[in-house]
Amino acid sequence: MDHKQLIELLQDVREGRVTVEAAVQRLRALPYEDLDFARIDHHRALRQSLPEVVFCQGKTPAQVAEIVARLAEHNDRVLATRADPSHYAATLERVADAHYHEQARAIVVDRRVERQGRPGVLVITAGTADIPVAEEAALTAELMGNCVERLYDVGVAGVHRLLDKVTLIQQAQVIVVVAGMEGALASVIGGLARGPVIAVPTSVGYGASFGGLAALLTMLNSCAAGVAVVNIDNGFGAGYLASLINRLRQEGS
Amino acid sequence: MDHKQLIELLQDVREGRVTVEAAVQRLRALPYEDLDFARIDHHRALRQSLPEVVFCQGKTPAQVAEIVARLAEHNDRVLATRADPSHYAATLERVADAHYHEQARAIVVDRRVERQGRPGVLVITAGTADIPVAEEAALTAELMGNCVERLYDVGVAGVHRLLDKVTLIQQAQVIVVVAGMEGALASVIGGLARGPVIAVPTSVGYGASFGGLAALLTMLNSCAAGVAVVNIDNGFGAGYLASLINRLRQEGS
Amino acid sequence: MDHKQLIELLQDVREGRVTVEAAVQRLRALPYEDLDFARIDHHRALRQSLPEVVFCQGKTPAQVAEIVARLAEHNDRVLATRADPSHYAATLERVADAHYHEQARAIVVDRRVERQGRPGVLVITAGTADIPVAEEAALTAELMGNCVERLYDVGVAGVHRLLDKVTLIQQAQVIVVVAGMEGALASVIGGLARGPVIAVPTSVGYGASFGGLAALLTMLNSCAAGVAVVNIDNGFGAGYLASLINRLRQEGS
Amino acid sequence: MDHKQLIELLQDVREGRVTVEAAVQRLRALPYEDLDFARIDHHRALRQSLPEVVFCQGKTPAQVAEIVARLAEHNDRVLATRADPSHYAATLERVADAHYHEQARAIVVDRRVERQGRPGVLVITAGTADIPVAEEAALTAELMGNCVERLYDVGVAGVHRLLDKVTLIQQAQVIVVVAGMEGALASVIGGLARGPVIAVPTSVGYGASFGGLAALLTMLNSCAAGVAVVNIDNGFGAGYLASLINRLRQEGS
Amino acid sequence: MDHKQLIELLQDVREGRVTVEAAVQRLRALPYEDLDFARIDHHRALRQSLPEVVFCQGKTPAQVAEIVARLAEHNDRVLATRADPSHYAATLERVADAHYHEQARAIVVDRRVERQGRPGVLVITAGTADIPVAEEAALTAELMGNCVERLYDVGVAGVHRLLDKVTLIQQAQVIVVVAGMEGALASVIGGLARGPVIAVPTSVGYGASFGGLAALLTMLNSCAAGVAVVNIDNGFGAGYLASLINRLRQEGS
Amino acid sequence: MDHKQLIELLQDVREGRVTVEAAVQRLRALPYEDLDFARIDHHRALRQSLPEVVFCQGKTPAQVAEIVARLAEHNDRVLATRADPSHYAATLERVADAHYHEQARAIVVDRRVERQGRPGVLVITAGTADIPVAEEAALTAELMGNCVERLYDVGVAGVHRLLDKVTLIQQAQVIVVVAGMEGALASVIGGLARGPVIAVPTSVGYGASFGGLAALLTMLNSCAAGVAVVNIDNGFGAGYLASLINRLRQEGS
Amino acid sequence: MDHKQLIELLQDVREGRVTVEAAVQRLRALPYEDLDFARIDHHRALRQSLPEVVFCQGKTPAQVAEIVARLAEHNDRVLATRADPSHYAATLERVADAHYHEQARAIVVDRRVERQGRPGVLVITAGTADIPVAEEAALTAELMGNCVERLYDVGVAGVHRLLDKVTLIQQAQVIVVVAGMEGALASVIGGLARGPVIAVPTSVGYGASFGGLAALLTMLNSCAAGVAVVNIDNGFGAGYLASLINRLRQEGS
Amino acid sequence: MDHKQLIELLQDVREGRVTVEAAVQRLRALPYEDLDFARIDHHRALRQSLPEVVFCQGKTPAQVAEIVARLAEHNDRVLATRADPSHYAATLERVADAHYHEQARAIVVDRRVERQGRPGVLVITAGTADIPVAEEAALTAELMGNCVERLYDVGVAGVHRLLDKVTLIQQAQVIVVVAGMEGALASVIGGLARGPVIAVPTSVGYGASFGGLAALLTMLNSCAAGVAVVNIDNGFGAGYLASLINRLRQEGS
Repeated sequence: MDHKQLIELLQDVREGRVTVEAAVQRLRALPYEDLDFARIDHHRALRQSLPEVVFCQGKTPAQVAEIVARLAEHNDRVLATRADPSHYAATLERVADAHYHEQARAIVVDRRVERQGRPGVLVITAGTADIPVAEEAALTAELMGNCVERLYDVGVAGVHRLLDKVTLIQQAQVIVVVAGMEGALASVIGGLARGPVIAVPTSVGYGASFGGLAALLTMLNSCAAGVAVVNIDNGFGAGYLASLINRLRQEGS
Repeated sequence: MDHKQLIELLQDVREGRVTVEAAVQRLRALPYEDLDFARIDHHRALRQSLPEVVFCQGKTPAQVAEIVARLAEHNDRVLATRADPSHYAATLERVADAHYHEQARAIVVDRRVERQGRPGVLVITAGTADIPVAEEAALTAELMGNCVERLYDVGVAGVHRLLDKVTLIQQAQVIVVVAGMEGALASVIGGLARGPVIAVPTSVGYGASFGGLAALLTMLNSCAAGVAVVNIDNGFGAGYLASLINRLRQEGS
Repeated sequence: MDHKQLIELLQDVREGRVTVEAAVQRLRALPYEDLDFARIDHHRALRQSLPEVVFCQGKTPAQVAEIVARLAEHNDRVLATRADPSHYAATLERVADAHYHEQARAIVVDRRVERQGRPGVLVITAGTADIPVAEEAALTAELMGNCVERLYDVGVAGVHRLLDKVTLIQQAQVIVVVAGMEGALASVIGGLARGPVIAVPTSVGYGASFGGLAALLTMLNSCAAGVAVVNIDNGFGAGYLASLINRLRQEGS
Repeated sequence: MDHKQLIELLQDVREGRVTVEAAVQRLRALPYEDLDFARIDHHRALRQSLPEVVFCQGKTPAQVAEIVARLAEHNDRVLATRADPSHYAATLERVADAHYHEQARAIVVDRRVERQGRPGVLVITAGTADIPVAEEAALTAELMGNCVERLYDVGVAGVHRLLDKVTLIQQAQVIVVVAGMEGALASVIGGLARGPVIAVPTSVGYGASFGGLAALLTMLNSCAAGVAVVNIDNGFGAGYLASLINRLRQEGS
Repeated sequence: MDHKQLIELLQDVREGRVTVEAAVQRLRALPYEDLDFARIDHHRALRQSLPEVVFCQGKTPAQVAEIVARLAEHNDRVLATRADPSHYAATLERVADAHYHEQARAIVVDRRVERQGRPGVLVITAGTADIPVAEEAALTAELMGNCVERLYDVGVAGVHRLLDKVTLIQQAQVIVVVAGMEGALASVIGGLARGPVIAVPTSVGYGASFGGLAALLTMLNSCAAGVAVVNIDNGFGAGYLASLINRLRQEGS
Repeated sequence: MDHKQLIELLQDVREGRVTVEAAVQRLRALPYEDLDFARIDHHRALRQSLPEVVFCQGKTPAQVAEIVARLAEHNDRVLATRADPSHYAATLERVADAHYHEQARAIVVDRRVERQGRPGVLVITAGTADIPVAEEAALTAELMGNCVERLYDVGVAGVHRLLDKVTLIQQAQVIVVVAGMEGALASVIGGLARGPVIAVPTSVGYGASFGGLAALLTMLNSCAAGVAVVNIDNGFGAGYLASLINRLRQEGS
Repeated sequence: MDHKQLIELLQDVREGRVTVEAAVQRLRALPYEDLDFARIDHHRALRQSLPEVVFCQGKTPAQVAEIVARLAEHNDRVLATRADPSHYAATLERVADAHYHEQARAIVVDRRVERQGRPGVLVITAGTADIPVAEEAALTAELMGNCVERLYDVGVAGVHRLLDKVTLIQQAQVIVVVAGMEGALASVIGGLARGPVIAVPTSVGYGASFGGLAALLTMLNSCAAGVAVVNIDNGFGAGYLASLINRLRQEGS
Repeated sequence: MDHKQLIELLQDVREGRVTVEAAVQRLRALPYEDLDFARIDHHRALRQSLPEVVFCQGKTPAQVAEIVARLAEHNDRVLATRADPSHYAATLERVADAHYHEQARAIVVDRRVERQGRPGVLVITAGTADIPVAEEAALTAELMGNCVERLYDVGVAGVHRLLDKVTLIQQAQVIVVVAGMEGALASVIGGLARGPVIAVPTSVGYGASFGGLAALLTMLNSCAAGVAVVNIDNGFGAGYLASLINRLRQEGS
């Protein structure tokens, strides 16, 4: 239920077409269903173009399956991140057209007829081990209506590898940079890009990488302006934000 | 010198209109001047709409004055952040129309005839003490061609204060949230906003705020999707990024 | 043995009704039994309404069973936290009416005839994954004689979900707020509540949540007055403290 | 404006005694005044018995004076914490009956006729250097209508010093324990007390105390149940919470 | 080879009873054997009363067995700490009279005829879960010729439990205090003891205990003089040091 | 009042020579005087050979002067650490024979007739900048009746500097090692010494020394057995502990 | 393709012997092959004497096998570090002459006819548990054409063990010091050596070693000049750097 | 006194040309002078080409002056780092030809006739604020006989600035990279260089740079092989190590 629908409802109340009691009931019923263990927010799809995303870590397969099934009743797309195969198996029994993206560890339901996306999002990784996080970002952005380009394994130790990609980098509307270890790629890309850069530190590394802390600090201290950071390994968050940004362009017309 | 100019130059070389030596000299001279203690990057203005910004902390007043003067020769706007009054005094002797924004601790030269900005950027603070960082963000965005709205002192402990501002929040194209202490405002705004949110943790607080670390971690772990974070007290970075994002809308048409 | 009983004993000694030797023996025997590996404090039940609580982590099933059995001899209620099924299996052989609360990971013996509790305690969680900690808190408070209301999965990213619960929040005498990730819920509830708020950070999250550190710092830095914090995942501590607070009301009459 | 007044207002709207426009205006005007740099929340006094407290750190003397003056127009008590003498000097020019508590670094306006407080709050410190934080706690609780007992300099290295104070400790309804260095006093008091204990770590110490971190961690890990913790040096927060708890007793009758 | 033997050898060289070559060979052969993967220091037994102790963690069962066997050839006692059952199984095949102390996770060879120890060492734990570390300390001290008293599970939350043990505490020459969680016991014992206190933080705890860091910081910041700290879980180090201290008394006569 | 005196008093009570009231009064009056801001523990001198030591940091000159004066009435020695010249100036007006040790930043009153100390304590520093902490340790031990040897500026980067001091090191009963930067000296000395080693990390260093944290961790992880650690810069604690240890030898005879 | 080859190619282009299109194609094809999941940099072998090294952690056996096979087509040596047996098994099926160094956890292909190395590299460990990291360093240096000497288990607690090795230490051109726990060996070696010292902290230890952090800080704060540090457990990096340094000598002639 | 001189001395002893007593006296007198507060190591000059360097921080001007004067008696060069003007003023009175390098904060005595240095050392900084640390490195290397090239202000956000310097970078024998903020420059240079890279993190930055920690972690986690790290702001250590490395080349001939 968006802002406009809310005003209409209240005007109906005022003008007697709807009783106060009915309005209250409808207002409370609509925005989310109460599954007892999780409150599902259906009107989010109207506000930000994707229904509430299910974060599977710490949830049982049965809980995930239940939530995905409910969301799939009201939406043409559902995304569940950090899913392991047992989450998927349980979900598949409830939602026959659910798919599992192994690399991105995500369960996806996508019933859109038209999947042609809005171009402009580029996802870059420093190394091979950063790809799962990058795929989570790319998948999220694709599901939100974007067409995503990928440029993987272009770490700063071989800066020449970036040189023949400068055009690609400068044409992107928004770039997601995924890097572990020292995370320096975000600064180098930030210096080359024309648009905003979303940096995702990953927990790839060992020793003094301290589970991604080194890359996180590097990115926060980036000497390149135009770079912002999301949580360690948070591919979903980066893809979501990239989509919000890329959508602005469309809307501005 | 943008990509197109570069290709033209190289074609001139190939076709003999420019010698290799001249081309090399021009290529190297153009992009930046070497001040011995600092290399100034003039072509950045073409790429990202603001000339290289001067970070005054750790520079002497004379150095700042010199760099600002050079930049002011080739640009209609110059921004120097983290400036103290002594930096400004030295700069004023070299650049008569430089202004000092005390709250934002910034030196600004602005010779634009048309200053009417692009609407869409909203800057919010949790507390009064966060305002200097917020002003740095707002000033940066304004200088980059945006019209900035401000909403200050709306911390989460009084969440009702946000309720009559929901329309303002949902109409913004991009929001900068500035908060110290526990930094929870970013999550609440992230849940209300329609567009991207840039969170700026500040060093406001004491004890276990550990100089802004608490707010930083809060923002990185935000349960609201669509939020990215810049360095502690980095108002400039947030304003810069907000401008890159807001500009996309215009360009998309 | 409470303070009053102690004085009576000493007076008995003084007046010759009890020899010094007998008194010493009784004093030392009464307050705790020595199980060789653990000293059990029986007189705590008199002081704070629940016998010493068994913390199972790091204890063998046999040790837990032994301690619970001893406590069950002198008390009508026993609580053992952080118990896994093997602890319960061993305990069940010794104490036939012991129950296992799987979600709260707790073993409970409850032989009270009258279980009607004192109302006033409300337990709130930000997410679904925070529920086990919340249940530990609720169970503890219930066992200490309180009637507990639950409000689960109301994170700050959907602040509107809290709006129709404001009455519930403001009627509670004491509130336990359980939240992981960025832990911002404590501040929002702190701003809405009329009574004291006990915040429990949880280790739910990933990356820069650093095992609950982010939520812990958020809660410690809460801009809302009236909030205090217990250890990460310490549902028991929160429920215990909530009960001590809620009991005050009763006693004051 | 409390909940009851709000309902009355809305009923007035419904029944035509107040126009929607007037209601909106009144609703928005009432809860807080907008001072441009700070929003003052007047209705907090109704909700939690003390008007919004002014945190002076990071505010100019003029700002503090302005806020205190405004608050003093609508309230019989005002508290401004972390005030230095310059804050007080500016405030005194605006509010003639403002007092400065040097040890607690607080500005206080107290125009109550009847200052007899509710007994039950005990404030304890481990050392002499912890007294300023303790005084902030005591002052806050006193201003909120409590009568506060003090027990200072009873560190755990001399545990015998606590023995003749056991009665005092066990009679308190709620105890604030203020300790720096290793902060162990909270656990010892927690083991002796009958009611809730609010622990305040202080930054007193050196070396591996890391600005109060050692005491903070000690208190969070307290093996004594019934202990909760506020931020390092946060005497105000502890006093505020103690008052909320102590007030419960009164209300319960 | 002790200092005296060394001087004798050198005098033999000087006076021609031993050639330089033979002396060099003997000097290098004596102090340690080279096992290729570990250099064993046999003369340590003479210097500090126990042969080099084997730290099993990170060594293979075969390596441990080999080192223990070599040490057992030249010494009447061998101690191997942090041993798991597989280390013991391999060792037993090589050294038939090796014993395994399960709680202390130690392999011991003890061929002394006279095992009557020097009294004076007391080992105290705060909780039941601290006992393995305490047993490692006690076992080490016993093997070095001390008679050890144990006082387990006397945490500070029940400070009264310590009261009838004050005599025991004050009679000890040196005390080892083993505590996890908040580690406050070291300060309380430090305030009661007459002799030196060696504090051993343990990794017992959860959440903000951060693997023993909280207890470590507590102990380092102890307000009681006369307390020193060893590494987290380092029972061996504490027992070793306690023995060095307790031996002084004997030697002083 | 020592344990023996206490028993005598209680026997007097039992046998009627002292009334209960008088006994209680005397018991409470004796152990410490209440200065309102600090409780002074006079009977500590009997228990551990030095009256309570005054920690000046965070106390006013007047407070320090008052406490020192009171202690000087009942004791032949008083030690006040972390004193600055203003503390000394105030103290001198009250206690004419107080002296100030500038390097050790300590105020000392020493009225002993016989100052000949017990030999056995050796204090070693790694560098010149560690000397103030070392002097605090040495002064404390001297005041407690020891004769202290000093060996300064023998860092591990020049391990040959230690070679001609081996005899000195091996003859010491107890050694205090004071080192900043990487703190490795403690391990090297620990490997050479025959007796216990007390390691004092100092805040000497820069960058990744993190205010002494690096040296602290080094010392805690020392591979040499027989080493224990006190707080960063805690020279007093080390000297105190060294004295407790060295005294054992005497008593053992 | 080294710098010289590049210039030749460009001159060929200029002089018409190669078309621009062919040059571009060759330039892009040569430097690295695109395996889709990893970009292999073949010309690195020319620049730094070893082809790109494969970091196996986080890669599947199939990925490792594919990359090693590709590298083995163009190079006479291939090194894959942090390989487990499953990586080796997959690789062996593709590259028949691949060997597995179990202790160093490395897969090696070495087809050089002449393997006689350049002397000058010495690898030292403090303990037995540090040997795997040391072997990774030694193996890397050997594969890069060096002859490596090893000196293992010479920790600083037995500094005399180093004395008869001083000549060996002083003759080395470059030394790799591998140490966990307190990591003090680097400083001692740094004080004895004539050439550069590369320090490798290891994660060997427990408690306050914090996964190698203690050793890392020790080494960074080394009081001995001439010491630099690589990441925790980074044997490869140390061996690589040692080889770069040792090669300088050869080249200088 | 080098190794050769030592053997000669011992042979003189053996053959009776020098008595044992004289030899001992000479051995102890030669290697260092004892200034009471600092032991000066004169024979270091023979071992590593520069006399012991004076670290002024924490030393009084008089101490620095005394040490420099002593060193200047036996050496043609003296270096004192972290000197402030007061250290220099005191030194100048003792050593007339001492110079002060303001930017590098160093006192230098240089009496060499021939100052032509060995080429091969390149010092690079990311920003202007990193120059003082870089100058300390360069000055150290110059004083140790090297000719140093400087390349300042070439941060990774403008990676194109590095492109026309590739030849310079690849010709250097050893490179010192000095960078604060995110410190990413070390990785980029490491990828371009042919020789070893010594990375110096600086404390330049704010917020989450945590005094240089971010840059330090970045450099330790560098994905480029051939990079080692020294302490934050340790320009001296980097210059010293660069010189040791560059000297190898000369010696190898």
